[in-house]
Amino acid sequence: MQRFALIGAGFIGSVHARNLAENPDVDFALVYDVDQERAQTLAQTHGARAAQDLDEVFNPEHIDAVFIASSTNTHAENLRRAADAGIAALVEKPIDMDLAQARETVDYVERSGIRAMVNFNRRFDRDHAQLKHLVDAGELGPLSLLQLTSRGPALPPLEYLKVSGGQMRDQTVHFFDLARWIFGADPEEVFVAGSALTDPRVAEIGDVDTSAATLVFGTGALAQIDSVRHTGYGYDERIEALGADGMAESGRMRSGNVTLFHGAQSRTDGLHANWFERVQPTYAASLGGFVDALERGVDVPVSLRDGLKAQAIAEAATTSLSSGRSERINYGF
Amino acid sequence: MQRFALIGAGFIGSVHARNLAENPDVDFALVYDVDQERAQTLAQTHGARAAQDLDEVFNPEHIDAVFIASSTNTHAENLRRAADAGIAALVEKPIDMDLAQARETVDYVERSGIRAMVNFNRRFDRDHAQLKHLVDAGELGPLSLLQLTSRGPALPPLEYLKVSGGQMRDQTVHFFDLARWIFGADPEEVFVAGSALTDPRVAEIGDVDTSAATLVFGTGALAQIDSVRHTGYGYDERIEALGADGMAESGRMRSGNVTLFHGAQSRTDGLHANWFERVQPTYAASLGGFVDALERGVDVPVSLRDGLKAQAIAEAATTSLSSGRSERINYGF
Amino acid sequence: MQRFALIGAGFIGSVHARNLAENPDVDFALVYDVDQERAQTLAQTHGARAAQDLDEVFNPEHIDAVFIASSTNTHAENLRRAADAGIAALVEKPIDMDLAQARETVDYVERSGIRAMVNFNRRFDRDHAQLKHLVDAGELGPLSLLQLTSRGPALPPLEYLKVSGGQMRDQTVHFFDLARWIFGADPEEVFVAGSALTDPRVAEIGDVDTSAATLVFGTGALAQIDSVRHTGYGYDERIEALGADGMAESGRMRSGNVTLFHGAQSRTDGLHANWFERVQPTYAASLGGFVDALERGVDVPVSLRDGLKAQAIAEAATTSLSSGRSERINYGF
Amino acid sequence: MQRFALIGAGFIGSVHARNLAENPDVDFALVYDVDQERAQTLAQTHGARAAQDLDEVFNPEHIDAVFIASSTNTHAENLRRAADAGIAALVEKPIDMDLAQARETVDYVERSGIRAMVNFNRRFDRDHAQLKHLVDAGELGPLSLLQLTSRGPALPPLEYLKVSGGQMRDQTVHFFDLARWIFGADPEEVFVAGSALTDPRVAEIGDVDTSAATLVFGTGALAQIDSVRHTGYGYDERIEALGADGMAESGRMRSGNVTLFHGAQSRTDGLHANWFERVQPTYAASLGGFVDALERGVDVPVSLRDGLKAQAIAEAATTSLSSGRSERINYGF
Repeated sequence: MQRFALIGAGFIGSVHARNLAENPDVDFALVYDVDQERAQTLAQTHGARAAQDLDEVFNPEHIDAVFIASSTNTHAENLRRAADAGIAALVEKPIDMDLAQARETVDYVERSGIRAMVNFNRRFDRDHAQLKHLVDAGELGPLSLLQLTSRGPALPPLEYLKVSGGQMRDQTVHFFDLARWIFGADPEEVFVAGSALTDPRVAEIGDVDTSAATLVFGTGALAQIDSVRHTGYGYDERIEALGADGMAESGRMRSGNVTLFHGAQSRTDGLHANWFERVQPTYAASLGGFVDALERGVDVPVSLRDGLKAQAIAEAATTSLSSGRSERINYGF
Repeated sequence: MQRFALIGAGFIGSVHARNLAENPDVDFALVYDVDQERAQTLAQTHGARAAQDLDEVFNPEHIDAVFIASSTNTHAENLRRAADAGIAALVEKPIDMDLAQARETVDYVERSGIRAMVNFNRRFDRDHAQLKHLVDAGELGPLSLLQLTSRGPALPPLEYLKVSGGQMRDQTVHFFDLARWIFGADPEEVFVAGSALTDPRVAEIGDVDTSAATLVFGTGALAQIDSVRHTGYGYDERIEALGADGMAESGRMRSGNVTLFHGAQSRTDGLHANWFERVQPTYAASLGGFVDALERGVDVPVSLRDGLKAQAIAEAATTSLSSGRSERINYGF
Repeated sequence: MQRFALIGAGFIGSVHARNLAENPDVDFALVYDVDQERAQTLAQTHGARAAQDLDEVFNPEHIDAVFIASSTNTHAENLRRAADAGIAALVEKPIDMDLAQARETVDYVERSGIRAMVNFNRRFDRDHAQLKHLVDAGELGPLSLLQLTSRGPALPPLEYLKVSGGQMRDQTVHFFDLARWIFGADPEEVFVAGSALTDPRVAEIGDVDTSAATLVFGTGALAQIDSVRHTGYGYDERIEALGADGMAESGRMRSGNVTLFHGAQSRTDGLHANWFERVQPTYAASLGGFVDALERGVDVPVSLRDGLKAQAIAEAATTSLSSGRSERINYGF
Repeated sequence: MQRFALIGAGFIGSVHARNLAENPDVDFALVYDVDQERAQTLAQTHGARAAQDLDEVFNPEHIDAVFIASSTNTHAENLRRAADAGIAALVEKPIDMDLAQARETVDYVERSGIRAMVNFNRRFDRDHAQLKHLVDAGELGPLSLLQLTSRGPALPPLEYLKVSGGQMRDQTVHFFDLARWIFGADPEEVFVAGSALTDPRVAEIGDVDTSAATLVFGTGALAQIDSVRHTGYGYDERIEALGADGMAESGRMRSGNVTLFHGAQSRTDGLHANWFERVQPTYAASLGGFVDALERGVDVPVSLRDGLKAQAIAEAATTSLSSGRSERINYGF
């Protein structure tokens, strides 16, 4: 049984709170938020207590693990405190918006020896995981090409976009991680072309909302990722993995299974209206993977270094957007 | 907020307990079971209390509604006690294995004026409900034909089959109800052919495991239902509704969305391994429909009389299995 | 190389003419029709000659095989002439509208020793044949249930219906044959319920346009067939075969493969607008099967007796429509 | 009625011969091939004559149109002769392997005023054309992204690859054309990353067999194309078009429609084993489009200039493969 504290009681914090409450191997003890009332409300709903301050949270006598779901600029500091206290940590991405800072933080945390995991929840999607299983089982032979689709459904608020770091660091980074994970290798180069097609203000803040990325791996294998902020048809995520012996697809997921045949056409339930509907089950699965590793005393399924690497790809990708050429990815270690 | 007591802490009772605990309009107060320890354990898991006896349950000062999930032979008696106490009731089917007894019970309960619903959970399947919505919206025009599939995955234990009342009363009855509900009308005749193909002992106890039923409605519209106890491919449920203007299908539901293309074929995730995986979400939805009706003071979505009618069809269907002819359905009221 | 004469230059005759012209093992020599001009035109299009009379057709010095696609009331007579001449024959169903006459004709033809095949073209559908292959390969285990769908798209002219023999003999007979073929066995009993829902005049002429048939085989295995004259969504044909180990589906065939995702729904190409579009390729395949048997000197893939048996089922089915009970099928031999 | 001569009696010539013979608006008169016997055989099969020499072909008294399906190095010369003779021409791509030569040829032909079309047959694929129809009807809103897949099934012989001009000019050029056609605009830049993964000898001859191309249009819209020479699962071609209001997909086409459900998985017919099976119907449709334009006296559906433009993209794409940067496309006019 792992005694958990949750840091951050916002929207995503409340998702994690429910999963912490329902995980049979978790004793959900504390919630901390800078807004104490919000912490109080969330804690009560799930039979936990609100922590007065972070000292209460980072107390290894009562807490075995923290789930860091606070604002991005506090991730690194909270990770360091967990490292100091010898408490395991599961942290939302990114570790730090600044890659150099993120690297120093990871070095620091690794020296402490605590178990720490970055929450790349999409790896825990039932279908993506099944595709990865087929790849690892050799069903496709050596991989040659990956196609990843990351779309919509709607442009986030401009206020959010301004501080998001741009489409590569905010959205596509999840798919850079999926590509690395599925290949079991680090891409060496990245090319991206992108445009602001949805709203002229996206261009004004120097960002893009529609982009096409190409990753090149050491073996010569390739990955293509299309990233789109706005669709007219809901949230669309899919993966194709092609190898010498076959191809596997984790297909776009429909919200239902009803078809109406009428005249020369048929009409079927489309995709989920928003990203959360689509990816919701991945959060419990990701938490489950972390808890399971703690219980069994084995490595966590996604390391902080995995987080760093995806971020390094996003940096090179952002450079490529303006350079117009394929950029070498600097993993820096 | 509705104060609930749950009667029955077996497998299906534990499913309902979780849904009661998670429904925001429910105050889950009591659990009763003939096995007090089982009641205690289930109550604790969900922050409820175990009731000492049924007097505690049927106390309108503390309880607004009961969920009757106890053994079949207690359904009628518990319904009558709810009627006497003026407490709303949601009851698993059947009301009573004996149709005449069931009718008397329904008459008794109706005279009391309590809200009472039979738990035909499949009506609350997201896809089936969407198909019903298309029918009611007139998208298909007047209905002419319904095809319903109810299959597998595995023969239940013979001990269960012996007391189940036979395939029509135990399994197909859900689909008799779906057919009535989708048509919005009562079928007048039923023909069934059936066989015991899975295990010779099924025939020895006078039951069938594979059957084909045909319902005839007053308009001349038809329904076909195939009911199979054993498949080699999981749990398969689907509906097609055909009208003058088109056709709607609530398709077989797959457990996932991953396809492997290899050579001349592709391989995709199949159906759910068992019935519970497939229908699980319908239980919360069904409870939600009942609670919503109580909260809004409107009719419950499925009446006890709906339960009686499906049972009456199952009686005639059972007769047809041996008579070899289309039997008139006696609704008896 | 087989020298062919075609009898009948109507719509279906012209389909066969093209297939005869394109089959590399066929020397398409003659066309005969009571309307000589029609015969002339069709013959010219495909490099054949118009025959003056049937004596020219049934001349074994110049002709090896006849394709009998003339009006139904001439099938039996033409089969007998082929038998007398020692010429192979491929005949459209039915052999004769009168089952007793049909039986005598088959007895007569069989005594002659010619190769004769009834044109149950649906057996040659690529997908149905693949399903049959899976059944024969044992992939499903022993069969328990078959579901067949035969629908639309539009009510044929009443003038046609009046002389068609009714839905069972005209439409469903193809699916009675498919059921026999897939099972590799003859059903023992048949029950049918049917209605006239499309047009009241269908009832006036004593026919139905919507029906649900159940076949019972000696093993206890079952088949359900729904037959509908009118849909609002094109021509719909599908088969499901269920066995102890799995299920195979020859799915409804779409006219194309384009999907539009928009809002909460998707829109896809529907079914073929009419039956001919859907089944067209089966005609060449069926002819190919016949020609191949002649070339290789082996049994034809569908015997006249297969035609008789499907007709016998249709007779019992027609009786059941009015008797309201399961009827024993009298194969009469 | 258009009197046609076919130049080239190889594999693809024989495909065209059959389509010429079956097109009701075509009088298929002549076949020419450097191998006279091959011409003779093909001509006889379809009721045409073998031409002694090209003077007989380019004779406007007897011929209205030529179909140029001879070896690539003769395309330009044959086009010029058609221009001189005032005979319409349908030519296989490319016009000339050398882009400058191709440009001069097109200028020459355009000055003559003859109708001339390059045979980009994929535009005539039923599903691709339907997708284009949805785009033009405004169902997707302004286009933002295109995804095109061009795969396999098997590496062509090295002897062929050596003279093919490389993957961009030989394979991807068809998809450059599809992208231009669907967008109704010319891309401005192209980036390609590619590798030789199938066979080391592909790299030795300076070619690639697996590549990822990105096109950038003037509006900022993007297209991604993956081109693969070898798959383990047949021939795979698909298109997705994304706009502001929705997305349309011309999906991968299966060879059949049969599914086997067994255990936890299902198995379905996969893709076509080879490219010709998949694209075969497009050849008759493309010829039909050309003939229809001649008959109606309107512009041909694909101009020689369309051929040039696709070729210009392929040139820039080939440059990008080695430069590692996005290359501006020089249409040169």
